[in-house]
Amino acid sequence: MTALQQKTPQSQSPLDALQAAMRDDMTAVNAMIIEHMQSDVPLIPQLASYLIAAGGKRIRPLLTLACTSLFNGDMVRAHRLSAAVEFIHTATLLHDDVVDDSVQRRGKDSANIVFGNEASVLVGDFLFSRAFQLMVADGNLDVLRILSNASAVIAEGEVLQLSAQNNIDTTMEDYLAVIEGKTASLFAAACEVGPVIADEDAATVKHMRDFGMNLGMAFQIIDDVLDYNAERAKLGKTIGDDFREGKMTAPVILAIQNANDKEREFWQRTLGDKNQHDGDIDTALELMNKNDTIAQGMKMARTYGNEAIKNLALLPATALKTTLENIVTFTIEREF
Amino acid sequence: MTALQQKTPQSQSPLDALQAAMRDDMTAVNAMIIEHMQSDVPLIPQLASYLIAAGGKRIRPLLTLACTSLFNGDMVRAHRLSAAVEFIHTATLLHDDVVDDSVQRRGKDSANIVFGNEASVLVGDFLFSRAFQLMVADGNLDVLRILSNASAVIAEGEVLQLSAQNNIDTTMEDYLAVIEGKTASLFAAACEVGPVIADEDAATVKHMRDFGMNLGMAFQIIDDVLDYNAERAKLGKTIGDDFREGKMTAPVILAIQNANDKEREFWQRTLGDKNQHDGDIDTALELMNKNDTIAQGMKMARTYGNEAIKNLALLPATALKTTLENIVTFTIEREF
Repeated sequence: MTALQQKTPQSQSPLDALQAAMRDDMTAVNAMIIEHMQSDVPLIPQLASYLIAAGGKRIRPLLTLACTSLFNGDMVRAHRLSAAVEFIHTATLLHDDVVDDSVQRRGKDSANIVFGNEASVLVGDFLFSRAFQLMVADGNLDVLRILSNASAVIAEGEVLQLSAQNNIDTTMEDYLAVIEGKTASLFAAACEVGPVIADEDAATVKHMRDFGMNLGMAFQIIDDVLDYNAERAKLGKTIGDDFREGKMTAPVILAIQNANDKEREFWQRTLGDKNQHDGDIDTALELMNKNDTIAQGMKMARTYGNEAIKNLALLPATALKTTLENIVTFTIEREF
Repeated sequence: MTALQQKTPQSQSPLDALQAAMRDDMTAVNAMIIEHMQSDVPLIPQLASYLIAAGGKRIRPLLTLACTSLFNGDMVRAHRLSAAVEFIHTATLLHDDVVDDSVQRRGKDSANIVFGNEASVLVGDFLFSRAFQLMVADGNLDVLRILSNASAVIAEGEVLQLSAQNNIDTTMEDYLAVIEGKTASLFAAACEVGPVIADEDAATVKHMRDFGMNLGMAFQIIDDVLDYNAERAKLGKTIGDDFREGKMTAPVILAIQNANDKEREFWQRTLGDKNQHDGDIDTALELMNKNDTIAQGMKMARTYGNEAIKNLALLPATALKTTLENIVTFTIEREF
């Protein structure tokens, strides 16, 4: 966000607008996050606060807050459930970084580097348990069902991603299944919880769930496209992390679909066989550029984004609805 | 169990007796376990069935079944919740083996060796989520509270154990807190669930919870003592795993409490500094023998065992009550 603000200091991004609209609620959510990551075992709050203090956009709890507020739901319940959603996300990040052997997260050394893989696995488990304790305290079985289903689907998406890693025959269908599981399902659940606790009808609940799912798909596709966006390197962000890990994401799959024999050999060596040399990332970017895969990826994301906006169509016109529509566009057109 | 059966082929162990008493129910639980570890992502059932097929005593689900049956609770509900308890335990094993860099589990290469740490972390997360889905399907918020609390406490115990590892100043109090968290809390929850779903009064629920807690403490102390039991080596089991990892367990803490300066240097080098040579395990066994720490550890376990038997005192005399009493003794006097 800082980068965009620096570029256009006078304008407020839709994410800023959502954060502003939900400011008091987010303060309550943050207090609940701090409270529930406490433990008599000092390493737990140390590690958890290291990751949580590093920031992050908090988009998932913001969605739960917004989707409760839209239907005049009980915001005190929304605070607790937003914290639960963020804990599930945080647990996933901790385990992801272990699985990916990551070294950076949110611009700092990742927790597995600072505290070790062992602590990251176990504190992830703790935060995951805390998420369930928060949901049990809320006491709504529908919410528990939605979020326990999402948790299982996230893990399935992560395992599917692991199975597809370094396999250049991974299809776009496989990729979409991975990101639906690992990312979109929690966006969907975060949005579904709002109308559920506001006792809205099944059709409304489904619209909001679909909104979250489509937004999550767009969000992850863009994340994966940005990993190959040379412009982003100018903002001081690293690019090519997915390339180094051999992750089969949209831009790579699109490039491989259009590859000639020699290019296919390149992808097999670098991603399939994990045999990478200096300059390979530049070749990868060239091949993507040639095949226009970045633009194709953006187009895929926009298709999901348009669906997400349609999912909101039946809502009465309010400032919050407009902000959510703008969030969809912003998610796709962001540069970071 | 095989080992003891070989030694006394004519007698049935109390664990055999419990398994026999719960045979039909355990068949239903096993079917539920198989059903719920399925996924469209093939690596999940592959890894899960590898670990689950390796066996294990299934003592936790057996306790849930027995503690439901004792109070004439709904056994169909008990099947589902027993599967949930076993999934929580299995998830913990998968993550433990990653954290400990284990190479063996249940006499086979451990899952992290066969499938990799990454898959073990993620399939652990999946099974943990499945446990919650099973509890949500049961729909009792008290059960959800009991088992989500247990899950958080297990993770706390594991993190505390990690913090204490290689620290020879770890106290017996620290050790008891670790094993209460990582082991006894799930035994307690497994036993508590039975009277809860049978709608027993709070005092009965507490007795059964305490029974599980005391049994779990005894179980873990014995496990830790057996890791230094030279007799066990004769049964073809490995000994000294905890020593190699620098885990601060009862036998070691007792030996360090009685150590002279030279012996303390030995413990600091081998456990504190992880600088181990050939023959160190023999020296460790000698020092324990000299200080009678194995007998002292057994005595600690018997104290918890006696409490566990007292917790059952108010139950009417039934064959199942007798079996549970015998299980306590068997847990302590077992040699494997």
